Amino acid sequence: MKEFQKPQLVVDREKCIRNIQKMVSKAERHELAFRPHFKTHQSREVANLYAQEGVKRITVSSVEMAQYFASFGWSDITIAFPVNLREISSINELNTRVNLHLLVDSMRSVELLNERLAAPLGVFIKIDTGYGRAGIEFSDEAGIDKLARTIADCRMLRLEGILTHAGHTYHASGTEEIEKIHRTTIRRMDTVAKLVRKYGDDLVVSVGDTPSCSVSEDFTGVDEIRPGNYVFYDLQQHDIGSCSFDEIALVLVCPVVGVYPGKEKIIIYGGGVHFSKQRISVNGVETHGQVVRLKENGWGEAVPGTYLSSVSQEHGIVTCKDPEFMGSLQPGDAIGVVPVHACLAVNLLRDLHFV
Amino acid sequence: MKEFQKPQLVVDREKCIRNIQKMVSKAERHELAFRPHFKTHQSREVANLYAQEGVKRITVSSVEMAQYFASFGWSDITIAFPVNLREISSINELNTRVNLHLLVDSMRSVELLNERLAAPLGVFIKIDTGYGRAGIEFSDEAGIDKLARTIADCRMLRLEGILTHAGHTYHASGTEEIEKIHRTTIRRMDTVAKLVRKYGDDLVVSVGDTPSCSVSEDFTGVDEIRPGNYVFYDLQQHDIGSCSFDEIALVLVCPVVGVYPGKEKIIIYGGGVHFSKQRISVNGVETHGQVVRLKENGWGEAVPGTYLSSVSQEHGIVTCKDPEFMGSLQPGDAIGVVPVHACLAVNLLRDLHFV
Repeated sequence: MKEFQKPQLVVDREKCIRNIQKMVSKAERHELAFRPHFKTHQSREVANLYAQEGVKRITVSSVEMAQYFASFGWSDITIAFPVNLREISSINELNTRVNLHLLVDSMRSVELLNERLAAPLGVFIKIDTGYGRAGIEFSDEAGIDKLARTIADCRMLRLEGILTHAGHTYHASGTEEIEKIHRTTIRRMDTVAKLVRKYGDDLVVSVGDTPSCSVSEDFTGVDEIRPGNYVFYDLQQHDIGSCSFDEIALVLVCPVVGVYPGKEKIIIYGGGVHFSKQRISVNGVETHGQVVRLKENGWGEAVPGTYLSSVSQEHGIVTCKDPEFMGSLQPGDAIGVVPVHACLAVNLLRDLHFV
Repeated sequence: MKEFQKPQLVVDREKCIRNIQKMVSKAERHELAFRPHFKTHQSREVANLYAQEGVKRITVSSVEMAQYFASFGWSDITIAFPVNLREISSINELNTRVNLHLLVDSMRSVELLNERLAAPLGVFIKIDTGYGRAGIEFSDEAGIDKLARTIADCRMLRLEGILTHAGHTYHASGTEEIEKIHRTTIRRMDTVAKLVRKYGDDLVVSVGDTPSCSVSEDFTGVDEIRPGNYVFYDLQQHDIGSCSFDEIALVLVCPVVGVYPGKEKIIIYGGGVHFSKQRISVNGVETHGQVVRLKENGWGEAVPGTYLSSVSQEHGIVTCKDPEFMGSLQPGDAIGVVPVHACLAVNLLRDLHFV
């Protein structure tokens, strides 16, 4: 880690591969199609690790990401974001060369998409099973029925299934609550599935937040999972119980620019433009990241009482209650920080260094 | 605004120029050196608007930004961030071609910097006047005296002045509190200035957060100001009273991907990777941005009761309590959003479209 001059994302390749293998096995065990979300890493190299495990289907969250991975030969892509009609020309172009799947959740989107597509493609109805973001409400039976019927009648659309993202598991208090949300999610999806099944054979039920896919062994009625974050995990996932600390496969290595032992404070080059402004409360303490001990070629355990307590644009303030660790540092050194949310840190920095 | 397929930052060039001219005039009126912070825009084009107003000295917050602006001929640059010794080779290279100024705030940084520099350069002592981030505490007279004396004795360092950033004005409740923080800041800087003046002639006292520079007319004892954000302003600055709504020179135009009238909800393509996760509370309501009406070539007033209430990676949830506005929208349209923090949104998207 001696060579980094600026904040640098470091990935532990072995942990990353282990995380992938574990999820591949789980999908096989439950006879689920595995379509991991690639927004977490946005990386050709991590994508290659997936390819080595036999993964062929992927999820992304923008047309841009679909174009990026298509350029490396990924040919079965779901854009898990309500279709952005302003990008219709890019969508039509992509649709000529990959097996593309889009999400719709309203009559207007369906009508406009059907009008503007140059060739048929598959769509999933996005269902809101409780997260409250995008999607048609799971309980709106009349609305879902109408939408499914309309899609079935559209010349350019092929109804392929229903899809949900139970993102509220990210704010669960622990594994029990994750399981509870997950059970509610799959039960609601099952009700919706029964409703729409008359409009198509082999309709796929797709779920797949990282917490549920990490914790649960119940996938009754589910055909496909789409977890993404689990490939690295992060402090938030550790905090809610999705993973052990040792499964976290990514840290941000940051230069130390100030050491203030009297104030239990370290200033690092590493701020909101590297970590994002996302924070969580761990045991009642607001944190943007957990400091870990760096090794020659990787990192070790968490430094007790030492965490990223505040970030501005480029500055990070680390609170350090470990005098020995503090005493070992001087400006020009570097420390490792496990970010709260891996996806956002990766999106900001992009360049991954593998150890 | 018809042409944007993806979230796009749009700058009102005239408002931007007016903001620059206003601050240039204020600096002239108070006989202050004007060294605006370029981290806000990171843009060659906005830099050109500054050049047209006669600005020659600039502030940046990283070596990378210094390199970027140096490549366009900017030759007098302060890196307002505690020196990152890991970038010493880039610093030495920059120091051969621009008039470079660095910040130090500890004996160890001073010693290491002095050892590793290839040629002399100017440094400012970073003073913490109350923000609590980087800098040596204003009240630590013995520490400041020792640091200044040491710098004066260093072969490679030239003590040029003292510098502070009163970033706590960003969290002020209004103009009165901004003024109060500012008065405390300049009083404390004046005390420090008296202490270090014996170590150099013409030492510069440099201050310069956007709120203080926007609101105050008292710059007693100050030689230089470094505001940056004011070039665009944003929702946070408007909220604390730094600017009028009409002075905000930047919005983020976002595609609409879902309209849910029954839920007073609009889903836009525009999330944490565009706005950052920064939010503020305006009149007790948590918000990530204020929705404005788009015009043919710019934007107009705020839409009442319509704001960005939540962001995930690519999704933004807009709460809309204006049925007429809601009724005018369908998927495929776009809306304008004034971000909470312009600097972070610009850092994420970079590409500025001028109207």
